[in-house]
Amino acid sequence: MRQILVIGIGTGNPEHVTMQAVAALNGVDAVFVLDKGYDKAALVRIRRQICERYITARPYRFVEAPDPERDRAPADYPAAVDAWHEARADLYEAMIAGLGEDECGAFLVWGDPSLYDSTLRIIDRVAARERVAFTHRVIPGISSVQALAASHRIPLNRIGAPVHITTGRLVAEGLPAGADTVVVMLDGDPRFDHLDPDLTIHWGAYLGTADEILRAGRLGDVGDAIREARREARARHGWIMDTYLLRSPTRS
Amino acid sequence: MRQILVIGIGTGNPEHVTMQAVAALNGVDAVFVLDKGYDKAALVRIRRQICERYITARPYRFVEAPDPERDRAPADYPAAVDAWHEARADLYEAMIAGLGEDECGAFLVWGDPSLYDSTLRIIDRVAARERVAFTHRVIPGISSVQALAASHRIPLNRIGAPVHITTGRLVAEGLPAGADTVVVMLDGDPRFDHLDPDLTIHWGAYLGTADEILRAGRLGDVGDAIREARREARARHGWIMDTYLLRSPTRS
Ligand SMILES: C[S@@+](CC[C@H](N)C(=O)[O-])C[C@H]1O[C@@H](n2cnc3c(N)ncnc32)[C@H](O)[C@@H]1O
Ligand SMILES: C[S@@+](CC[C@H](N)C(=O)[O-])C[C@H]1O[C@@H](n2cnc3c(N)ncnc32)[C@H](O)[C@@H]1O
Repeated sequence: MRQILVIGIGTGNPEHVTMQAVAALNGVDAVFVLDKGYDKAALVRIRRQICERYITARPYRFVEAPDPERDRAPADYPAAVDAWHEARADLYEAMIAGLGEDECGAFLVWGDPSLYDSTLRIIDRVAARERVAFTHRVIPGISSVQALAASHRIPLNRIGAPVHITTGRLVAEGLPAGADTVVVMLDGDPRFDHLDPDLTIHWGAYLGTADEILRAGRLGDVGDAIREARREARARHGWIMDTYLLRSPTRS
Repeated sequence: MRQILVIGIGTGNPEHVTMQAVAALNGVDAVFVLDKGYDKAALVRIRRQICERYITARPYRFVEAPDPERDRAPADYPAAVDAWHEARADLYEAMIAGLGEDECGAFLVWGDPSLYDSTLRIIDRVAARERVAFTHRVIPGISSVQALAASHRIPLNRIGAPVHITTGRLVAEGLPAGADTVVVMLDGDPRFDHLDPDLTIHWGAYLGTADEILRAGRLGDVGDAIREARREARARHGWIMDTYLLRSPTRS
């Protein structure tokens, strides 16, 4: 039976890969790569680096496929996501079908496969179609949330308190009531003016890479500087990936 | 200057360690180990295994210290945590002071240092005392939350939706209003009877280890079986570490 591995590779530092990932990679026949946007070239380059550096046991194919176009400002968001997942499922199915009967293929996923990534959903879709038989296994990786906390040398949670991970889209409507720590991902244009200026923010861009930028402070004091640093870095690199944590001032 | 590394080692599978952790470990003079309970012997054993397997470059000391006693059912929770952190800070300070001026010491933290772990808070405390000078760096590791999702081969979030990570203590009061996905850690006695039986649960114990147990289903159908499996496993092993994810039935 064909074997599929979904491997989390961390967020830009090739050394984020785990020994488990390295061991698994050394058993693969094909590495599949698609990207979802940002600077595709940079992200494909890191995946190549990881393979070149860590796959030493046997030859493998590096299979890059053109990613289906995605409507980034759709009128109907769920329908657009569905159409895009379906197009990706076609592609994944073809890639998996391209493996020999006993071969093993790996999808290298940015960060951890469990956080805001569609790979597992798409693989479930391909499996449900039952047109190509395969088994699959997931290998966790360092997520950008952990990279953010590590670089700032902070715990995510306050003692005994929860951590809420959410998206820029949701935070635009305000923080959830009673939230203590909120981590925000996927925010294409962070706006802070509707938030309590007494929140503490820990912000990080290009986490794990040589270009990493960190900023922290009282939101009212550093919010504008973060927006400016973000604008400047994005213009310089042509793309940006950033994540931030907001902590309520009410508890210590 | 003394250098301290706080290294996340994953949740029981020695192969959870990252290449970054392995590289860092190969530069240390001393590895510090304390444990917080559970079966201390098993957890210290895994840390030893990691050191023995991956530190090959140079000799190092393995420094085990008796962990300060902790009041597990205190009348005043914050005060008890504070007293316990202070006792640990004494211990950490002594360990760090025991390093030579240019030596490097590492604290090996279970899972990821950012989630429900006191090491970073205690190191900040030691730094604030200013009695021993050191710098420190954090290396992220695979958390039990990610191990749970990977073993169940599921994403944590629904599409575009948030993820709430919390504790058994907080969930005993009910789920946060409007929560979509809730991950529960540190639950010494999971009770499900006050929760919606239509929730989906994904439960995992001893994640990453050879003893891993997984269960999933509709809470009303599998809740009792999970409590039973947990009781049985805990009796057999003498300790248990488990985590679960609850997903609301209202969205797909
Ligand atoms: C589609 S999600 C993928 C998340 C990924 N699976 C993970 O575990 O981090 C992309 C978002 O992750 C965050 N992100 C990913 N890599 C990052 C990095 N190197 N630095 C900062 N944020 C990053 C950003 O918030 C970005 O909008
Ligand atoms: C003090 S917290 C430490 C968490 C750790 N820093 C992490 O990143 O997973 C301990 C809790 O983590 C969870 N946990 C840790 N290791 C686990 C494992 N191997 N399997 C299941 N749950 C685990 C349990 O919920 C346990 O009560």
